[in-house]
Amino acid sequence: MARVVVDVMPKPEILDPQGKAVAGALPRLGFTGVTEVRQGKRFELEVDDSVDDATLAKIAESFLANPVIEDWSVRRVEP
Amino acid sequence: MARVVVDVMPKPEILDPQGKAVAGALPRLGFTGVTEVRQGKRFELEVDDSVDDATLAKIAESFLANPVIEDWSVRRVEP
Repeated sequence: MARVVVDVMPKPEILDPQGKAVAGALPRLGFTGVTEVRQGKRFELEVDDSVDDATLAKIAESFLANPVIEDWSVRRVEP
Repeated sequence: MARVVVDVMPKPEILDPQGKAVAGALPRLGFTGVTEVRQGKRFELEVDDSVDDATLAKIAESFLANPVIEDWSVRRVEP
């Protein structure tokens, strides 16, 4: 068994209304100094040792992310 | 300027319907060996150097996460 983290973030050129909303709200709540916020997704997967990196990349690209508008990265982490 | 990553994940004892849906769909799409999926959020913040770790923790806990149902972590990353 291994733990895998897949991070999915909107591409830099894509508008990110959720992130913009957070960035706009922070000063109103008294937090200054945050100049940009981007919001994405984080998936934590428990996978059998039989699942190789190529399969994980396929899962991330074809299923967890929309590669037209999102960048993704896959990494194995210590459990 | 520094880049900060805030990871927000549902607590282990909280049901995660999005993650469950992903885990249930993967075998139907031909991907076996993934035993569990949890879906959370990832925020990337650009912050001034004046923003200290205590402020970042407050932002994460009070604003980016719902600490009743979510765990969160803050880390500074290389730009």
